[in-house]
Amino acid sequence: MPLLKFHVFEGKSEEEIKHILNVTHEVMVEAFEVPASDRYQLVHEHKKHQMVMEDTGLGYERTDNFLLIHMISRERTKKQITKFYENLAKDLDKKCNISPADLMISISSNDDNDWSFGGGKAQFLTGELS
Amino acid sequence: MPLLKFHVFEGKSEEEIKHILNVTHEVMVEAFEVPASDRYQLVHEHKKHQMVMEDTGLGYERTDNFLLIHMISRERTKKQITKFYENLAKDLDKKCNISPADLMISISSNDDNDWSFGGGKAQFLTGELS
Amino acid sequence: MPLLKFHVFEGKSEEEIKHILNVTHEVMVEAFEVPASDRYQLVHEHKKHQMVMEDTGLGYERTDNFLLIHMISRERTKKQITKFYENLAKDLDKKCNISPADLMISISSNDDNDWSFGGGKAQFLTGELS
Repeated sequence: MPLLKFHVFEGKSEEEIKHILNVTHEVMVEAFEVPASDRYQLVHEHKKHQMVMEDTGLGYERTDNFLLIHMISRERTKKQITKFYENLAKDLDKKCNISPADLMISISSNDDNDWSFGGGKAQFLTGELS
Repeated sequence: MPLLKFHVFEGKSEEEIKHILNVTHEVMVEAFEVPASDRYQLVHEHKKHQMVMEDTGLGYERTDNFLLIHMISRERTKKQITKFYENLAKDLDKKCNISPADLMISISSNDDNDWSFGGGKAQFLTGELS
Repeated sequence: MPLLKFHVFEGKSEEEIKHILNVTHEVMVEAFEVPASDRYQLVHEHKKHQMVMEDTGLGYERTDNFLLIHMISRERTKKQITKFYENLAKDLDKKCNISPADLMISISSNDDNDWSFGGGKAQFLTGELS
């Protein structure tokens, strides 16, 4: 269920974006132990002046390859979240050539009430999902 | 006050989008019992590869007509939320030809502090809104 | 660390947008007492029919100059938040010619777990940031 919003700079090919989405999805499914079809991804492509990403003095050098993921999700454990961060940085580096220095993630948590996946129903309340 | 972010695939006409916004607004006003001018709506249009929406195995067949709404709102009751989901699915189907299988909603709740509607003021704190 | 999403109508020049981002960043740094390089900003530009912003009866007349900021942040105090609203309205008016009537802000709070600034690490958990 998490909903993932991907923010990248314009210039990536459709294939590159698809690959990033696929790799991220695999890591997310493993870290959060959700079904493979629990996939909800949005992409926003920005011009250079539409995305300003510094580093709070941490020493990360951002490039045109920068990727920000804003995830909306039910509460996850600290263990699941840190596993997600670590594995995503590793796999995007290895498989998509996105450096860990170019990866930023922010998570917004919400509740069971807060999801309707279709049919006008709240599937976590009806029991269709648990 | 809720802020609604609409995500659709490119290809809808301006009129179709306006109609979706109008119908959604009417349903929201009734479900949450807010003033008619409590309207804050944003639209993002995505290319096919920029929006991947599956169904967590629930059996919804997504089409090019898919609509995701991400709503930012003060806390609403479970009753208000489920009414919103149900009525929105019904009305978008009837009035905008969007199937309930193509409608997904996610809500992020926040607090009274978290809104300034203009003038640099927090209207829920000043008492201008309650 | 806050992540700020700026929503404006199409038609502003790159220079105008950069100026809005700079002015907002300065106000944010002062209000929240964060490092100057704690800067994470995204811009979305909308066509007229893609952004509908009314005023809940408060009497604000919105123009093509309207700016909505959706901020994702750790918890801030009520004092910090109201200072941010007030100073931002004042400075955008004075320096960017955006009327306080055209400025709306919504904040979504999250937790220390919820941020990875790079390297696959959760810097508020590792102690790299505090």
